[in-house]
Formats: sequence, structure tokens, C-alpha cells
Amino acid sequence: MTKTPEVADAIAARTDRYVGWLTEACSIQSLAGQPDELERMARWVEEKLTDLGGDTRRLTYEGAPDAILARLGSGPRTVLIYDHYDVQPVDPIELWDSKPFEPEIRDGVFYARGSADNKGDLVARLAALEVYQQVHGELPVQVKFLVEGEEETGSKSFEAIAEHYADELAADGCIWEGMGIDHAGRPELVHGAKGLAYVELVYRGLAEDQHSSLAVVAPSPVWHLVEALASLRSPDGKVLVDGFYDDVEQPTDADLKLLEQLPFEEEEERKRLGVGHFVGDVTGQDLLRRYYFEPTCNIAGIVAGFTVPGASKTVLPKEAMCKLDFRLVPNQDPDDIVAKLRKHLDARGFNDIQINRFSNEHPVRSPADSLVARAALEAAKETFEHEPAVSPMMIGTGPMYPVAHSLGIPTVSPAGVHRPDSNIHAPNENCRIDDFLKIIDYTVSWLEKLGSIDDD
Amino acid sequence: MTKTPEVADAIAARTDRYVGWLTEACSIQSLAGQPDELERMARWVEEKLTDLGGDTRRLTYEGAPDAILARLGSGPRTVLIYDHYDVQPVDPIELWDSKPFEPEIRDGVFYARGSADNKGDLVARLAALEVYQQVHGELPVQVKFLVEGEEETGSKSFEAIAEHYADELAADGCIWEGMGIDHAGRPELVHGAKGLAYVELVYRGLAEDQHSSLAVVAPSPVWHLVEALASLRSPDGKVLVDGFYDDVEQPTDADLKLLEQLPFEEEEERKRLGVGHFVGDVTGQDLLRRYYFEPTCNIAGIVAGFTVPGASKTVLPKEAMCKLDFRLVPNQDPDDIVAKLRKHLDARGFNDIQINRFSNEHPVRSPADSLVARAALEAAKETFEHEPAVSPMMIGTGPMYPVAHSLGIPTVSPAGVHRPDSNIHAPNENCRIDDFLKIIDYTVSWLEKLGSIDDD
Repeated sequence: MTKTPEVADAIAARTDRYVGWLTEACSIQSLAGQPDELERMARWVEEKLTDLGGDTRRLTYEGAPDAILARLGSGPRTVLIYDHYDVQPVDPIELWDSKPFEPEIRDGVFYARGSADNKGDLVARLAALEVYQQVHGELPVQVKFLVEGEEETGSKSFEAIAEHYADELAADGCIWEGMGIDHAGRPELVHGAKGLAYVELVYRGLAEDQHSSLAVVAPSPVWHLVEALASLRSPDGKVLVDGFYDDVEQPTDADLKLLEQLPFEEEEERKRLGVGHFVGDVTGQDLLRRYYFEPTCNIAGIVAGFTVPGASKTVLPKEAMCKLDFRLVPNQDPDDIVAKLRKHLDARGFNDIQINRFSNEHPVRSPADSLVARAALEAAKETFEHEPAVSPMMIGTGPMYPVAHSLGIPTVSPAGVHRPDSNIHAPNENCRIDDFLKIIDYTVSWLEKLGSIDDD
Repeated sequence: MTKTPEVADAIAARTDRYVGWLTEACSIQSLAGQPDELERMARWVEEKLTDLGGDTRRLTYEGAPDAILARLGSGPRTVLIYDHYDVQPVDPIELWDSKPFEPEIRDGVFYARGSADNKGDLVARLAALEVYQQVHGELPVQVKFLVEGEEETGSKSFEAIAEHYADELAADGCIWEGMGIDHAGRPELVHGAKGLAYVELVYRGLAEDQHSSLAVVAPSPVWHLVEALASLRSPDGKVLVDGFYDDVEQPTDADLKLLEQLPFEEEEERKRLGVGHFVGDVTGQDLLRRYYFEPTCNIAGIVAGFTVPGASKTVLPKEAMCKLDFRLVPNQDPDDIVAKLRKHLDARGFNDIQINRFSNEHPVRSPADSLVARAALEAAKETFEHEPAVSPMMIGTGPMYPVAHSLGIPTVSPAGVHRPDSNIHAPNENCRIDDFLKIIDYTVSWLEKLGSIDDD
């Protein structure tokens, strides 16, 4: 099967309409902590899905913005589509060239907070449903379109929502919010995501800050924290927390084969990062294997005492704090990892260091040969000029565990509107209009595939 | 010899006059970066010394506030008195109960910036000269009264000034700005000071901050700095910089004997600091020996990445910075210590970490049996209710090296107006009026001793 020619015509004829939808969506300030705007955005999603013929309902959970679930289409197969309607904060606002919630198109690029993450994908998918209906009539599968409003603050309620509404969400496969289009124009496609355990280590070891001359006898909280940190990781990147690798699943032969086919411009990446070598001095396949299958222990922040650049103050600080994020791979469990960290510190005399927990995401992998995975891959091959870049997991984290693992729904994250220069989570977030239209086309294409490809 | 009774009467009769002088001195905002106020303060000192019969001149050095030098009195012996007329910044201003440059007396305590460090001492010494002259007539020794204006910003020009004006400063002994009165009311007395090498370590290892998922392949600048730090010091406080202890002079038998006599309320100090034990778990004489004779490596500050308490952001920071202060003991040399630090880092793969230098003070010791030391000690015994607390060195740092070492003038720092709760360098700096008057008395007393005790 090749592309349906009427689809391109239908998209071309409706470009203004869909860019208009994107403009509407990106004009709503659906930020965490702005309940009125979040509700406005939830209603906008609800109305669009209703207009498309969806049977919508709200999935509610105390303290969380409502998630919207709409059922459309019919057929023996059911696909769950996941997007989110909330956006990242806009600071530092002074670095934006136009206002984050007043979308502007410059040189074919659409600038607004949320344009790339993930309202661009959300609107492209809504538009694709309409295009499909215009070209073909009834959707070829039953679609459950789920849009949550808490993703950018860690989807804290999503696990509970997924558990509580398990029956309503049941599906044969799930299309997760978009990966992107890589710097070479290749559509990305992944079947999972790394997990995350984020902790803050805090140690207050003195009643008050002291003059630094007293460091000769008063134990330094900063040194204590630095010593604790030094026990956690070796310079080659190996995490030294006792038992850290116990549950790590080794990549399969199929995984390693996938890595061989994966495009990775090592030298360009090295230059982009501005580094002389990669962690552990690895290159080639070892680098790729590390990239996708190794967990990490990263210091996201550290602070103590006097930190004004270019000045001096002789102080012995009373306390020190750092933030660690552990990226996890299957089958590491974030709760277990934090428990192991606690035990590791206790065993080395650091039982006085407090651990405060933040994000908590399980790593997750889904099969590469599921119905949704095959549909997304075949559609990508037909839609894009370049071959898809298929990788085993996203190295970042997404809250797909409750769906892909707990509900057992095979999940794939296909290409969405964003590119490496889309400034996700940063000022001047953007997506290219051409990419937005291409993702509408791609979405129609994988809907077609979902209705037509063979079962196994 | 015992106290001259007329001295107490003279001080009592002139209390308002001398508190008035202190009020005048503390009303001038002689802060670094305020050249007009610094000059106003220099003129105030100059006028007071001239009124007392001094032959004053200015010691100038490009970029530094003028130091004032006055010669008074006569006799075969010459004593150099060192004070400074500049003060610390007043921030955080909101924590002051009264304005820092509008002195206020509450319950017998005089509150103003500079009242304890070191205008209280300066004015007490000026007052003592007048009292001496009123009671006895001509001063019994030749006094060279030196008051500099750059002490609070590190006396950067003082070494050059001392070298350039070596002939004018020549003396048989030097009375340095005041130590204090300890929490038990004991007058302190020291014969030297630790040195200081203050550096900032900066490492920028990535072109930009990255999403923390990239920490799996991109070397982390924060880990690199933490690893460098971990190589510098063992948890028991030993500094691991190669060759760090090469030039450390061991305490003599006389030093250790002095420690045996030194009052040190270990348990109270432990509680005040809020710690369970001291560095290296030492107690008793080992603790005192460490206190006075051990050098340190302290982390005065460290910062990298995301540091908002109670929040999370998954970032791989592009750079990290920390501030280290090394307190040095004789005969360590700050230049040599920084060179050794550089070499130590280079030898361990940390040659990419930049070292920026700040304060630089040589440690210095003077003999405990010099003329000035004996005069200050004997006068203290006669003036104060409690026995003096004599210690070998102040654990802090003062710029006395150019005088005590380079010019070879035996130097002692006797009790001044401040107590542990005088809030030196902090909001609500203060000195007690009673202590101020006592230090006038004490100063007259050591002037008398300087004129009368045997040479031996």
C-alpha cells in the first residue's frame, strides 16, 4: 500500500484551518499552577474531540487537572493515543523573541510555548482524524484519545488514573506522544523510555555558618556531602551504589542488531556537546550500547556556602545540598534504587544525610513487533523522505509505564513535530509549519495502517 | 608595679568625651568603594593624632586609601601600633536593629558597624594616649601609630606599603589590632596568625547545559569537580595535596606547654557548633594542638546546576565552581601551596580545572618573650579580673606578616574591645561601653609597661 493521494490534497486545502487550531491551542496558558487556563485548555480539547464525533468524558483525580478521554471510530482494533495539554514554564521570559502565548510565524516556523511539546503533536493528531474522516469516512479502528494535563510536572496522578480507569483505557496498542524528527530529517521511533529516580540530598551539620578558621575542628557539612557523592560513582560513569545493577536487563541480540543499523553521528555529537571524549572513553557500538542501555547517576545541582563568582568570603557553611537524578533501565525500580542509595549511604557513615524524593518513573520497554509498532514504522517509511531512526528506548523519561507495563498495552512513540532545534522546555520553542503538516499526513497514514495491516 | 590610680579617675572623668569620639568615628561610612568617606575617616584619624601631639604623615600607594602614620612621644624604645579605619559591608541591612552608621547605645552596649572591628580599639588607643599624657605627661616610649584603610578587603597594598616605608615603620615591637575578650571575660593575647590561600576552582566542560539524559555519554563537569575535591582531603581532615605539609613547623615543647595552660571549654564549644565530635575525632590536648597548629582545606562554597530547594529539574550542568580556603601555619607559603594544588590537580587529570586566586596571607609567628609580648601580658594580668588566655596564634588571619616577618618587628595582638557576641562582620555589630573603657585602661597600662619593664 502506498500513500492515499487525496490525503495530501485535503491537508493542503485545510492548512489555514489547522494552523488556526494550533494558534488557538498555543494561545492558552496551560501552565501548572494556573487552574483556570488549564481548565480552558481541557475544554478546548474536549470541544475539538466532540466536534470530530468523539464521545468524551473526563478522567478525574483529586488535585490533578482533569484528563480528557474521547472514543471515536469503530472496528475490531482499538488504539489508545496519548498526548498532554499542559506546557512548561516560560522563564527566562526575557530570552523570547516573541511572546510565548501569542504565537508568531516567522520564515515558516511557528513560535509559541507548547508548539513542539506537545500541542503541535496533539493538534496534528486531531487534524489527522478530521482529514481521515474527510477522505475515507469512518475511522478504521476504534480510537481512544487520551489527553492529560499534568505531564510537565511529572504526571504524578497518571498511574492512579490509569489504574482507576483501566477498563476505559484498554486497547490493542498505544501511540504515545511524539518523538521527533532528527537533525538529518529522519523520523524517530522508539518502543520505551528510561526511568528516573530524582532525589535531593540535604545535610545540615552545624548549628550556624561559622568563620572558616573553625574548619580546623568543626566537621564540614560540605566535605561530608562531597565524600558521600564521591562514593556513588567512578569517573568512568559506573554507579557504585551497592546493588545498583542487580536488576539491569542486558540488551538482547536483536537490540544490539538494532544499534548497528541506528544512525549516530558520533563526531558531530561530540562537537555539539563541546567535549573531547565520551563518558568512559567509549566509541562506536559501545557508545550506542551505553547510550540506550546504561543507567546513570547525574548531579543536577549542588550548592553550599558562598557562591558569588569572583569574590571571596571565608565561611564554613552549616549545610550543603545536591540534587541527583538516576536514569534507570529495565528492570530497575525507582523505589528500590532509592532504598539502595539509603542503604549505601548508611553503610558508609552518611546516615545523617537526608534524602528527599521527587520524580519517580519506571523504565519501560514495549515489543518492537507489536501492531502499533509495525503500523508506525511502515507509515513512517512511506511518509518521510528519509528512513526512520528506530531506537530501543528514549534516553529521556516519559510516564508510559502505567500504560505500557501496568495495563500491558504495547506502546510506541512515533515521530512528532519537534526537531533538535525546537527549543523544547526553552525560550523560543517552535515547530516548522512543514513538519506540522507532515505529522498530520503521517498520522493519517498510521491510522490507515492500523486498520489494514496483518495481525502478526 | 600595680595600676596607677589616677588613670581610672581620668578615664571616668572623660567617659563622655571618648564615647563621643567613638560615635564620631562610627558615624563615618568608611566602606571599601566609598572613597569620599574613606578619606573623611583618614582625616578624622589624622586630626585626632595631630591633636594628641603627633607628627602625622600619609603613606600612599596607588589604588589604596592612604594609611596614616603618626609619631608621638620619645624615649629609647619605639613601639608600632597597628589599627585600621575601614569597615566591613553592612548587608544584610534588614537584620540590623538600628542604622549601622548611626551609633546607638542600648543597655550599655554601643551598636554600630566598626564598633568592634576595629574602630573601638582604634579610639580606645587614641583615648589612652590622651589619658597617659594627662596623668603622666610625655609618653614613655616613641609611638608610631599606623592606621590603614584597606584591611577589610585584604590589605592588598599593605605589603608594598610596609616595604616602601620600612624605615619610617622601624620599631622594637608592634602592638597589632585587638584580639578580644573571651566568653568568660578573659583577655586574649596571641603572638601570630594563621595564613590564608583562597582560591576559586572553575570548570566549564560542556558547551551548554544539557538535558540530564545525556549524562550517559557527556562527561559531567560537576562530577569532575567533585572527583577533584575528593582527592584533596581525607575525612579526618588531613589535606592530601602533594607536599602540603612539607614546610609545616611542628609546635615546640614551649608551645605544647602553653596549650596545657590554655583554657578551652571543649564540651561547650562542641555544643555551640552543634556537632557530635570534632574533626578527626580528637579531644583534649590533641584538639588544641590541631586548633592552633594544623592547616586546613575548607570548601567555603560550591555551586552548579539547579539549586532551588524542594524542586527538581533534570539538567546536566555545563560548569561547576567551588571556593576553597586553606588556612596555613608557619612556614607554609600561600604561593607555594597554590602551586602545589595546581601540580596535584594536573597529576590527576584535572588540568582542565581553572584556579582563580583571591586572598593571600602568610602565616606568621612572633616570639612570646619579646618586650611587647611581656608588656601586654603583664598589663593584662593587672588590668583584668580574669587571667589572660594566651594562645600561640590566632586561628584566623591578619596581615601582620609584612611587619612581624618582613620587617622583623616582634608583634603581639593583645585584648581589644570585642567579645564572641560582638557580631563582627555581621548585623548589629557592637561593643560594650565597659569593655571600651577597660581597653583604654589596658592600653595605658601596657604603655606604662613598655616604658618600664626590663630589657632582658
